Amino acid sequence: MKQTCSSILILGIDPGLQRCGWGLVASEGSRLSHVAHGVVRPKTSADLADRLAVLLVEIEAVIATHRPHEASIEETFVNSNARAALALGQARGVTLAACARAKLPVAEYSPRTIKKSLVGTGSADKDQVAFMVRRLLPTAGDVGADAADALAAALCHAAHGGLRRRVGG
Amino acid sequence: MKQTCSSILILGIDPGLQRCGWGLVASEGSRLSHVAHGVVRPKTSADLADRLAVLLVEIEAVIATHRPHEASIEETFVNSNARAALALGQARGVTLAACARAKLPVAEYSPRTIKKSLVGTGSADKDQVAFMVRRLLPTAGDVGADAADALAAALCHAAHGGLRRRVGG
Repeated sequence: MKQTCSSILILGIDPGLQRCGWGLVASEGSRLSHVAHGVVRPKTSADLADRLAVLLVEIEAVIATHRPHEASIEETFVNSNARAALALGQARGVTLAACARAKLPVAEYSPRTIKKSLVGTGSADKDQVAFMVRRLLPTAGDVGADAADALAAALCHAAHGGLRRRVGG
Repeated sequence: MKQTCSSILILGIDPGLQRCGWGLVASEGSRLSHVAHGVVRPKTSADLADRLAVLLVEIEAVIATHRPHEASIEETFVNSNARAALALGQARGVTLAACARAKLPVAEYSPRTIKKSLVGTGSADKDQVAFMVRRLLPTAGDVGADAADALAAALCHAAHGGLRRRVGG
């Protein structure tokens, strides 16, 4: 049962069409604990629409199984590659819609904010982030890069005291 | 009931986060008829995730109500604006996932192919396309621009004899 200020279950998501990482962190006061993590990998041989449907179904299954209270997602860095932005947008939109339909408030953090919150500096590299994820969540075991990024988003959200920022327009 | 080569119900979609047009066309041999059309307009004041969830719910409701056999969507023109491509990608991904989860095969056509199939030239403007949509589907009544684009995608798919092309990777 959700209890204000005492225990929240946070779903972190690192969206992607080839690999979409997810991770669940329980936050009870200052105590953080690993709950679960995984990676959705839709078959690259399938049609785009079918791959997005797999993503939708899998993320909805994670939400139905674990019933998180809030979601946290890394803000997408938009570089000059519009084609890549379109592809990532398609995967990201599906995960956002899945969370919001399940009535999860969704917070968004920049890569810099996530790094700073975990490592202390916004310019930390991916290995440092993964190291801190394993350190903060020792029971998580061997976490791959995609799930580590998702757990990092969840940890950042916990460090920010739960829902402050909502995903922007 | 779906009958091979005789009658298919096609759902055309013009994806967008502010306005997502949809239109249903029945194709029986060379006979085309309008079934329904509409526009989903998620509140712009809502969170991004909530707006995408509205889009997901509404498109799924259209599919559940009308039970189309195939879907047709305009290929997204990727210009140099990566931020716009990300936003459109998010809306597009949600509509593709909704169709594919309902087991609808999804075909994709370039704007040029759609124009050429309706008007005879790939350089036709939007007004000409809307004019031909109303002419081919006289019972559709007064169709706005977004629904007209969606109906145009469905008509193009019908003209191409149903499913030939699947949405690309």
